[in-house]
Amino acid sequence: MSGDAPQPDWIAVDWGTSSLRVWAMAPDGRPLAEARSEDGMSRLAPEAFEAAFLRLVAPWLSGPAPVPVVICGMAGARQGWREAPYRPVPCPPLGPEMLSFAGTDPRLQVTIVPGLSQARPADVMRGEETQIAGLLAVAPGFDGIACLPGTHTKWARLSAGEVVGFQTCMTGELFALLSGQSVLRHSVGNTGWDAEAFAEAVADAISAPQRFAARLFGLRAEALLSGLAPESARARLSGLLIGLDLAASRPYWLGQDIVLIGEGSLSNRYAEALRAQGAAPRKADATEITLAGLRAARATLVERGRP
Amino acid sequence: MSGDAPQPDWIAVDWGTSSLRVWAMAPDGRPLAEARSEDGMSRLAPEAFEAAFLRLVAPWLSGPAPVPVVICGMAGARQGWREAPYRPVPCPPLGPEMLSFAGTDPRLQVTIVPGLSQARPADVMRGEETQIAGLLAVAPGFDGIACLPGTHTKWARLSAGEVVGFQTCMTGELFALLSGQSVLRHSVGNTGWDAEAFAEAVADAISAPQRFAARLFGLRAEALLSGLAPESARARLSGLLIGLDLAASRPYWLGQDIVLIGEGSLSNRYAEALRAQGAAPRKADATEITLAGLRAARATLVERGRP
Repeated sequence: MSGDAPQPDWIAVDWGTSSLRVWAMAPDGRPLAEARSEDGMSRLAPEAFEAAFLRLVAPWLSGPAPVPVVICGMAGARQGWREAPYRPVPCPPLGPEMLSFAGTDPRLQVTIVPGLSQARPADVMRGEETQIAGLLAVAPGFDGIACLPGTHTKWARLSAGEVVGFQTCMTGELFALLSGQSVLRHSVGNTGWDAEAFAEAVADAISAPQRFAARLFGLRAEALLSGLAPESARARLSGLLIGLDLAASRPYWLGQDIVLIGEGSLSNRYAEALRAQGAAPRKADATEITLAGLRAARATLVERGRP
Repeated sequence: MSGDAPQPDWIAVDWGTSSLRVWAMAPDGRPLAEARSEDGMSRLAPEAFEAAFLRLVAPWLSGPAPVPVVICGMAGARQGWREAPYRPVPCPPLGPEMLSFAGTDPRLQVTIVPGLSQARPADVMRGEETQIAGLLAVAPGFDGIACLPGTHTKWARLSAGEVVGFQTCMTGELFALLSGQSVLRHSVGNTGWDAEAFAEAVADAISAPQRFAARLFGLRAEALLSGLAPESARARLSGLLIGLDLAASRPYWLGQDIVLIGEGSLSNRYAEALRAQGAAPRKADATEITLAGLRAARATLVERGRP
């Protein structure tokens, strides 16, 4: 049978703003196969989601019965496939309020995990609640902080199985805009790194966040006047932004037990910045945690006898 | 003679990143005519500047002798028409180090006013030095702060006819990027205003700049959760950014005599934000001040017997 497409028990989906990632799942919860595309929410009108999904998973849909599909992320946004209203914190990351509907294609039985909202200060998340559920699945009883670095970094306080509060910093998006589209693009490299410049910038932004606005243009000026290297400018910009984030998020990390959920360099930079402040973050693999969370969402549905 | 093109004694030019503005000047320093185009530095390769300039001023060049042209702004940048090296502060805003050259077109005798640089903290300006010279021309002996709101807001400390130090905040550029290209574009309106939301955001960013990173995404979340009006989101974003600027620039305005050089709504917002902090900024018209500065540059050349 080798070479045949897998026949999944269900399909796990992480549908973000800029990408779509799917896994064919075995009954025992192992991923049998994986696929991804660039069909993120930002590229799709609501009526285009099902077709974008079918393009990826069609080979997995040869059985006679509808296949359950469990989705986390921006597919549940107002501009997504179908809106799954936010659940207000404090609450467990997953609850009974899931949005289930049959696909236009009869082979699909879809469930979207709703995001979480916080009234004051106003905040929202979509997708991270499932990762938080995954963290609690692999570390039951974890009491502390989940930090999820990204385009919009999330800091969430977890206690007694609930998300007590959370905070979003647009750190990744600011880095992309400033390094790619502002006047700093002439000075900030696309590659390379300068660990010392990063550490100094983090410390500077945390200890003197009021100087942030003036520090940014300094990157351009130093490049013009004294040839600041593009990799140093890149590390300094990253450090200023992560430092500003840490300044805003201090109640979330000072003296706390922190798990960083992420992959790649951004997560490493947060770890480095936090360690320099005396914190001792542990790291968890984002893909494993996302799958653990989608498994937990699927288990919730099965427990309730939903398809 | 009415209807004929003016025959200028010289031509005054403000050549910025995104626009080109020219005035035909009478011997007594009055502008006889004005023209402008969108041919800013960012659109032009160095060899394209002269043609872009001639497109605007050709009707003014019918006399037999070369016409002196005095330019301030980004035309003197490395990527400009010709590079006019920065003059380091402390120094008077205008000095003898002007960049003069004959045009490829024999009707042009060009002078570019160099910008200013500061070694520590590294900073640069191009164009604002001429406006500062204009301010000192209309207010001789002014001792205090010139604030020039814009894409890159400049704060300059003036004393005894010299620029003693200065600071740049990318306030206007951050507003354009965040309101036009970040996730906040869905929540921030293009028009409208909310004076109360602006004032609160300024106060918030000045008193707690460490919270800035978390405040930004709050605009999006409040729009989603409680229908924050687009004009209120716009005013709050502007207030957060101007407040962050004022937090960085406090040594430039606290207890100082301030002249705001600018026009339109941005300058009004800085004035409002500064007044709320107890400062009493005066306002000067940017066009008048720019012309006064270019006249001062022209006078410097004439005194030295240069064309």
